[in-house]
Amino acid sequence: MPEKIILDCDPGHDDAVALMLAHGSPDIELLAVTTVMGNQTIEKVTRNALAVARVIGLDSVPFARGSERPLVREVETAPDIHGESGLDGPVLPEPAIELDGRHAVDLIIDTVMAHEPGTVTLVPTGALTNIALAVRREPRIVERVKQVVLMGGGVHIGNWSATSEFNIVIDPEAAHIVFTAGWPLTMVGLDVTHQALATDEVAARIAAIGTGPARFTGELLEFFAHSYQDAQGFDHPPVHDPCAVAYVIDPSIVRTVRAPLDVELTGTLTLGMTVADLRAPAPESCPTQVAMDLDADRFWDLVIDALERIGAVEL
Amino acid sequence: MPEKIILDCDPGHDDAVALMLAHGSPDIELLAVTTVMGNQTIEKVTRNALAVARVIGLDSVPFARGSERPLVREVETAPDIHGESGLDGPVLPEPAIELDGRHAVDLIIDTVMAHEPGTVTLVPTGALTNIALAVRREPRIVERVKQVVLMGGGVHIGNWSATSEFNIVIDPEAAHIVFTAGWPLTMVGLDVTHQALATDEVAARIAAIGTGPARFTGELLEFFAHSYQDAQGFDHPPVHDPCAVAYVIDPSIVRTVRAPLDVELTGTLTLGMTVADLRAPAPESCPTQVAMDLDADRFWDLVIDALERIGAVEL
Amino acid sequence: MPEKIILDCDPGHDDAVALMLAHGSPDIELLAVTTVMGNQTIEKVTRNALAVARVIGLDSVPFARGSERPLVREVETAPDIHGESGLDGPVLPEPAIELDGRHAVDLIIDTVMAHEPGTVTLVPTGALTNIALAVRREPRIVERVKQVVLMGGGVHIGNWSATSEFNIVIDPEAAHIVFTAGWPLTMVGLDVTHQALATDEVAARIAAIGTGPARFTGELLEFFAHSYQDAQGFDHPPVHDPCAVAYVIDPSIVRTVRAPLDVELTGTLTLGMTVADLRAPAPESCPTQVAMDLDADRFWDLVIDALERIGAVEL
Amino acid sequence: MPEKIILDCDPGHDDAVALMLAHGSPDIELLAVTTVMGNQTIEKVTRNALAVARVIGLDSVPFARGSERPLVREVETAPDIHGESGLDGPVLPEPAIELDGRHAVDLIIDTVMAHEPGTVTLVPTGALTNIALAVRREPRIVERVKQVVLMGGGVHIGNWSATSEFNIVIDPEAAHIVFTAGWPLTMVGLDVTHQALATDEVAARIAAIGTGPARFTGELLEFFAHSYQDAQGFDHPPVHDPCAVAYVIDPSIVRTVRAPLDVELTGTLTLGMTVADLRAPAPESCPTQVAMDLDADRFWDLVIDALERIGAVEL
Ligand SMILES: [Ca+2]
Ligand SMILES: [Ca+2]
Ligand SMILES: [Ca+2]
Ligand SMILES: [Ca+2]
Repeated sequence: MPEKIILDCDPGHDDAVALMLAHGSPDIELLAVTTVMGNQTIEKVTRNALAVARVIGLDSVPFARGSERPLVREVETAPDIHGESGLDGPVLPEPAIELDGRHAVDLIIDTVMAHEPGTVTLVPTGALTNIALAVRREPRIVERVKQVVLMGGGVHIGNWSATSEFNIVIDPEAAHIVFTAGWPLTMVGLDVTHQALATDEVAARIAAIGTGPARFTGELLEFFAHSYQDAQGFDHPPVHDPCAVAYVIDPSIVRTVRAPLDVELTGTLTLGMTVADLRAPAPESCPTQVAMDLDADRFWDLVIDALERIGAVEL
Repeated sequence: MPEKIILDCDPGHDDAVALMLAHGSPDIELLAVTTVMGNQTIEKVTRNALAVARVIGLDSVPFARGSERPLVREVETAPDIHGESGLDGPVLPEPAIELDGRHAVDLIIDTVMAHEPGTVTLVPTGALTNIALAVRREPRIVERVKQVVLMGGGVHIGNWSATSEFNIVIDPEAAHIVFTAGWPLTMVGLDVTHQALATDEVAARIAAIGTGPARFTGELLEFFAHSYQDAQGFDHPPVHDPCAVAYVIDPSIVRTVRAPLDVELTGTLTLGMTVADLRAPAPESCPTQVAMDLDADRFWDLVIDALERIGAVEL
Repeated sequence: MPEKIILDCDPGHDDAVALMLAHGSPDIELLAVTTVMGNQTIEKVTRNALAVARVIGLDSVPFARGSERPLVREVETAPDIHGESGLDGPVLPEPAIELDGRHAVDLIIDTVMAHEPGTVTLVPTGALTNIALAVRREPRIVERVKQVVLMGGGVHIGNWSATSEFNIVIDPEAAHIVFTAGWPLTMVGLDVTHQALATDEVAARIAAIGTGPARFTGELLEFFAHSYQDAQGFDHPPVHDPCAVAYVIDPSIVRTVRAPLDVELTGTLTLGMTVADLRAPAPESCPTQVAMDLDADRFWDLVIDALERIGAVEL
Repeated sequence: MPEKIILDCDPGHDDAVALMLAHGSPDIELLAVTTVMGNQTIEKVTRNALAVARVIGLDSVPFARGSERPLVREVETAPDIHGESGLDGPVLPEPAIELDGRHAVDLIIDTVMAHEPGTVTLVPTGALTNIALAVRREPRIVERVKQVVLMGGGVHIGNWSATSEFNIVIDPEAAHIVFTAGWPLTMVGLDVTHQALATDEVAARIAAIGTGPARFTGELLEFFAHSYQDAQGFDHPPVHDPCAVAYVIDPSIVRTVRAPLDVELTGTLTLGMTVADLRAPAPESCPTQVAMDLDADRFWDLVIDALERIGAVEL
């Protein structure tokens, strides 16, 4: 049976690939897509989500717009990585579907409560604002979801500062709420996603598919490659967000370590750092775990396979 | 025309008096009552709110249960001031009305959005968790409400610590959100409420009314007097929460100063302190003001008048 | 018997008046003068101290140069209040005496340890860096001094921020060390010094003295008046530092309240705030007290008297 | 030419081994030994230092007692690792030499200033309180020393908390001062010292030496092994402090990375964390570097060689 997920995202180049992977994989049943400000403003990332949906032929799932700003702090976006649109590179088509009338927080709550307990996985690939608000507005979802698998943070690596990753540091209070809620949670952070590099070989495999969605993905990765080279000196761009979806599809492609996890909320040098206590093995009862290593070949196989299954899409 | 208000409270002895004042005053139209954990757990303060409603004959207004915990931090309650029930002293009747099915956050949003812009005043007399969640879930309420008049904080006085007041310090992040949202906001804090003392003369005037609601109020104040004597060395208890309602009824009984206001979120000695910058006069455009002095006689006249208007209530 | 003091200062217009008061008062025996960066760099304030010494005929007391920077944080100075020289306004003469060869920290330690226990009062009127270093380098001075009477902080007033005063906020860690060392300590802060205003009448009395030191003082206060008008909107400048010396001369001109005192080291809005817990009367054993009110007339009488006793000084 | 060093320590089992290595190595000229509270109180660690000196026949070097408490925070010791004496295990002889009359801070300053610029290396193996006080009391030592090579901190490993190491976290402000002073600094932290394990083979080699100092070292390591097994689950104890001395003897046994370094002073989960920014290669001008890997075999060869050179010592 495919895994039921809600994808909460801020497209964003890698969010777009995550959306494509979730749509194309036979092992995922996508229940809803929700958006949150982050890589760009909520208007832009929501528009981007709908545009990507059209490109990949995803028209049967509710999309809802979410938080326009973090819980406590001011808005920060990442135009140097994702461009002014939040999805610079390819030409974006006009959206073909309408947004759900509900706020993302309400769609998340409604969807979780409408399904059987223990069946829905939340996959956040942006700031955790929507998820945190949902937990505070309807605490029963904590018991009800199957698990949370998120892209964010890093144990030994930072990108936004020496110790922090963008998704977490732009709303650290939300991340703290989500990390400590008590539900089963897997943090797929930079330790893993910096192993998910879109190498020339990967680009060539995607190009070889030859469909519209594949061309679109290739253009995304090309822009992303330039951003990461200019801003952070990477030879090939790390494609973060689909790693979380890939873990849901097949947990065996990621090595995880069980450890207590929390987020630093007051540090001067460490604000937004995801702190894993790795000094001793965590007990079985510890609900959180952190991903440490990726089988990059099998990861890219999943992405390529999803693109092939999506096939050609009429615009 | 009476002022339309939503009372967001955690009864709580002084919250009960605030509820009575709001119900009995001809200058207030009570649109809704919402609850928030604080003086006691959400179960207890919600039960207390309904019990008080029955005592004072308030049966035509929706009551909704709200947040069971603060936005970011852990729950803290105040049994040394309000007792194990949150409303120790009088015998509490069984509630006679049902809770609204909605969460407090939704009832607040729905009520504000259903009325004309600029007509609804929010009167929080507990932690600001519900209000903060409403702002983040539906940012349009910030433009839509008339004003926020809250009991909380203190410029030169603390009670929970040397520098902080209970309502603010138990959810400082929520308070920060509410204080800096941009709407017109009046902070009625300890500087004022420590002037609202239930003296022997006040108690005698209440006793003289002779009705059930007056007897109930008298028993509340008697318990409150003992709490404040034991816990904080007061000769007569400060009756905080109705001061905010009184300001809505008649702003002239409170002296206010326009000043930028915010809440300290990281201090070791000052966590939850409400910081007013009083170094220079604030510009007219500053949306926040702080109450500094109270006309205590006219305040108690309002309370007595409300009790007299409520009259006898059949239980 | 006059009170033996060490004046640790950062002249600074009001430091210069404090030095003059300490030199001219028959109730003070000035043992040493030490300098600390603050109003200006250590080079400038040390040169200023020596220049003031020459103006007022003070040539029998060791002067030592102290800390060039705060304990933990970066240097901050106050040119908008004290000008580029740190003592703008009058023409400064060349110093006539040499600096003591010792560092201020060593001169403080040596002087305290060379006198009988319980006889030396420390009077810091700048950042507390030197005093804190002395405490950590020779902890026995804590038991040995009579008391510390410092100008700095404020309970209900700030100047550098809404909640902090300059002397404390530029080296809050040093202030924390000094405030919590356990010795008898009186904080003479803005609550008091904002009552020590150099009014037109004060200026006229000083001008009437007609000596060189009086003219010099008059020119200092004239510059100071302009600074405080421009920077903080004062009609007449508060002359902070001599208030601490005046308290040593005659404690009865200041109303003090015994209270636990500490300094906020981590606050975002409250960094460097001096926190007094005034919620309940402090026990007799509490070693710290805070000055709350000043008898301004008697304060200025002390200053005028000191200037008159100094008389004319040959340059 | 041997490297001139001042060893600033808190013996402590591994400090004792560091002292032995510094004394026995032909490549080190030990100029002075200073003590600082840490593993135990200043009285105990100072007594321990003198006792170790006697055991290893070190009688020609000044020993000075230093700080009894951290710069800003309260004293914390580590009896669970080092026992009640700070050096539990072997019988400690009475000291045979007298302490230098000077405070450690003064001995450090005097020693550095008395030698040629660029010739003296500071080797702190405890809290950085003395070194920080010396920097603030005599800033010229920063230009004058050759380098600082310290044991403390960790980039990816903590011991006192998930993110902090004991020497740093007990006086983080002092560590911040030392890390950011601008002198060449090498941090030899847990990343390296957890590779310096006293395995059974190491213990056997030390036992085979057969002298008094070797027996003493063996007894230290035996106690240390039990402590680390009980308190932190180690199979073999990490012998931290001599790693810093070994780096001075032969930098090639440690792999270092040049990186900006600082210490977190306000974090809730990360207080005292040593933060290295490893996101991009540091410029040549960066004065700080962090040790990442150890050639453990060559490290133990140095220790064994030092013990052999010390030979038998008459007590
Ligand atoms: Ca994303
Ligand atoms: Ca209340
Ligand atoms: Ca001064
Ligand atoms: Ca050590």
